[in-house]
Amino acid sequence: RSLSTAARRSLKIGVIPADGIGKEVIPAATRAIEALGSDIPKPEFIDLVAGWETFTRTGVALPKETVEILRSECDCALFGSVSSPSRKVVGYSSPIVALRKELDLYANIRPVKSVAREPGHESPVDLIVVRENTECLYVKQEILTTGDNGKEARATRLITERASGRIGQMAFELASARPRKHLTIIHKSNVLSVTDGLFRETVRAVPKLPKTNGKYDDVTIAEQLVDSAVYRLFREPEIFDVMVAPNLYGDIISDAAAALVGSLGLIPSINAGDNFVMGEPVHGSAPDIEGKGIANPLASIRSAALMLRHLGYDTGADKLDTAVDAVLRDGKVLTPDLKGNSTTEEVLQAVLKRL
Amino acid sequence: RSLSTAARRSLKIGVIPADGIGKEVIPAATRAIEALGSDIPKPEFIDLVAGWETFTRTGVALPKETVEILRSECDCALFGSVSSPSRKVVGYSSPIVALRKELDLYANIRPVKSVAREPGHESPVDLIVVRENTECLYVKQEILTTGDNGKEARATRLITERASGRIGQMAFELASARPRKHLTIIHKSNVLSVTDGLFRETVRAVPKLPKTNGKYDDVTIAEQLVDSAVYRLFREPEIFDVMVAPNLYGDIISDAAAALVGSLGLIPSINAGDNFVMGEPVHGSAPDIEGKGIANPLASIRSAALMLRHLGYDTGADKLDTAVDAVLRDGKVLTPDLKGNSTTEEVLQAVLKRL
Ligand SMILES: CC(C)[C@H](C(=O)O)[C@@H](O)C(=O)O
Ligand SMILES: CC(C)[C@H](C(=O)O)[C@@H](O)C(=O)O
Repeated sequence: RSLSTAARRSLKIGVIPADGIGKEVIPAATRAIEALGSDIPKPEFIDLVAGWETFTRTGVALPKETVEILRSECDCALFGSVSSPSRKVVGYSSPIVALRKELDLYANIRPVKSVAREPGHESPVDLIVVRENTECLYVKQEILTTGDNGKEARATRLITERASGRIGQMAFELASARPRKHLTIIHKSNVLSVTDGLFRETVRAVPKLPKTNGKYDDVTIAEQLVDSAVYRLFREPEIFDVMVAPNLYGDIISDAAAALVGSLGLIPSINAGDNFVMGEPVHGSAPDIEGKGIANPLASIRSAALMLRHLGYDTGADKLDTAVDAVLRDGKVLTPDLKGNSTTEEVLQAVLKRL
Repeated sequence: RSLSTAARRSLKIGVIPADGIGKEVIPAATRAIEALGSDIPKPEFIDLVAGWETFTRTGVALPKETVEILRSECDCALFGSVSSPSRKVVGYSSPIVALRKELDLYANIRPVKSVAREPGHESPVDLIVVRENTECLYVKQEILTTGDNGKEARATRLITERASGRIGQMAFELASARPRKHLTIIHKSNVLSVTDGLFRETVRAVPKLPKTNGKYDDVTIAEQLVDSAVYRLFREPEIFDVMVAPNLYGDIISDAAAALVGSLGLIPSINAGDNFVMGEPVHGSAPDIEGKGIANPLASIRSAALMLRHLGYDTGADKLDTAVDAVLRDGKVLTPDLKGNSTTEEVLQAVLKRL
């Protein structure tokens, strides 16, 4: 809720479908946003490029222009998915990782929730993964040397008090707004006592900071080692409410949680900073189904909803979510990842009909 | 199969129950070994200490004496599980991580297999996680400084050609001996192009080494990013046969796989080097059920079987595995983790009866 919503007469949305099915699902999301009408300021879409295809065409995966236009002209953005080369390619590195850092989108928020077709029949998964989005092994400080063991590669894993504190704050904020008010800190401090120790202690300290003024006192705190968290996610997902994790654990945990609710094609996310928010489906570019028109657009539509909610447009966000839930509950118009045989366009139409 | 089995008149086994339920399940495993009679050389058990309790008593988690006796007097060992302090304690660090390194037990081999009670009714999980056991973030090179971001902690993730090559070799060896002969390399080289790039390329190069002499040519090779591997493990575990992974990913992946077959209480492992092998159940010290006599001993008994098999005692190993499988298939005498209500002792007796 960082930007003032009142003054906006139009909503400028950077649109970066990038690679693979990103180019099929992001346009579906923009059409769903357009259909919201007066619930949000008039959307203006600004098409931007990034990704592996952009790299092969221009030699740059994340053009400077894309970052600058996002910074100077956009209120928010939607990002699709990127393909990666199957071998190391000199000069190429993931544009989404770079974008998160460039725009200081320090929180990757990934709600995972099952929509029960028959209430009571599915395991009650309803959790949010709050993933730190700027550091850990994602600082990409890697070096290669040669030594006694042949080639020796080293990567730095960075955990800072500042980044751990602000992601902790975000996690407590989200947890305190939920009925269960429960936060699980994910770490591996039995091995990484310094880095994960700092993460754990800094998150734990958040409710005690003067500025929080006791407002997180009713949030209960638990901890899980990352390996055991994955195990328990599968065995008893109902024990989790909000999970906060360093970058890489968050990446893995959110895929694990996604597996519980049927398909990665349902899981939305936002990359949020203090001044910008970018919606992004959690799934990848899915080269196996690219171009077939059968990619699930629901993760992208839900990502648009999350983005709008973050900007303060709850009515619009609610409408999108309610429409998606209805399509899922109905269960008739679904893409193949959900064992249906509908197309991206048909699923989009089903959503639009319910808006 | 690194040690010569022929010459041994007795089998000297270091026994390190360590903490928590380790003290309940390791004795069950030693009794199962004893019951094998003439299938193996006469076992001699040498009791050794390590762990959190040892630390609180002596100030050292892994006494030098334990390492020396393992090195000089033992043919192999059984390790239980360690508890860790809930806060950082100066001077304490995990004895199992240290032991793996001290004895250069570079391969952590974790077979995960479901025993179908009614054949065809359970998802066919039958895979082996081959986890590199000496480097990655487990080198525990961590530093803490203070900078612009408050406290800043950095850990080094080390991946070497030597360690990746020998774990790759081990993985190909195991894969080529299995019916499906399929190896999946787990990495995250879309982010860690240098470290995970080195791991991936080095493992891929193993079948082309002159010394392998074409003997892995019939092993098919696949790759999965670690996040997507966890997702697919839950959605379609049957695609995996042997998985080879750097240390931390292997830690997480093996817990994920364990969740698929009902209980961590079933999953065995060995820590294997060129000159030593140590069996170890994958589960932890389980403080919640410690001392109640209801810990599942099957992971430890299976770990003993794996250890014996690695030493070349296939007959003894087969007997233990067959007895464990029979108890599981029978489904009447099970500990609470498997929704039974039997004790550790009762499960052990059920196994012994079938030897
Ligand atoms: C594509 C990749 C760099 C990315 C990540 O690891 O963050 C993806 O897995 C994600 O979860 O958004
Ligand atoms: C106890 C811990 C240090 C250990 C590890 O991370 O290796 C455990 O999780 C394991 O899998 O053996």
